[in-house]
Amino acid sequence: MKAIVHVGLKPGVLDPQGKAVADTLGRMGYDEVHSARIGKVIELDLEGVAKDKADARVKEMCEKLLANTVIESYRYELVD
Amino acid sequence: MKAIVHVGLKPGVLDPQGKAVADTLGRMGYDEVHSARIGKVIELDLEGVAKDKADARVKEMCEKLLANTVIESYRYELVD
Repeated sequence: MKAIVHVGLKPGVLDPQGKAVADTLGRMGYDEVHSARIGKVIELDLEGVAKDKADARVKEMCEKLLANTVIESYRYELVD
Repeated sequence: MKAIVHVGLKPGVLDPQGKAVADTLGRMGYDEVHSARIGKVIELDLEGVAKDKADARVKEMCEKLLANTVIESYRYELVD
């Protein structure tokens, strides 16, 4: 089973990495780029765990390690 | 219009960041985590460009800046 975890900055939180990407693209001539925001996708390979238990465990992993819940939000899906 | 760009390491390319996440989760007691791979999601806000032109331009942005095509692969979708 796989867990696909999407982690991104909460709205309103400054994204310096995104700003750097947008500014660089602007300098490269891509004026249509108004802004950019960068997020993470974490793909976990899970073995030997039932789906319902995996759901609770992945949530814990997000809360404890994968996302900084002060400035980031996360969502995840379990894929067989 | 938005362009959602997904960038990830090509299969077979070592992912030290992913390994660190998997090892840490293992030490935290999440033994079901066999491995982890980390990717990026770059959300671009595009203004004043037609969809067909945007498609070619976003591909260029990926090839030139957003992905290191030696070790990374990318895909993107345009969202109104």
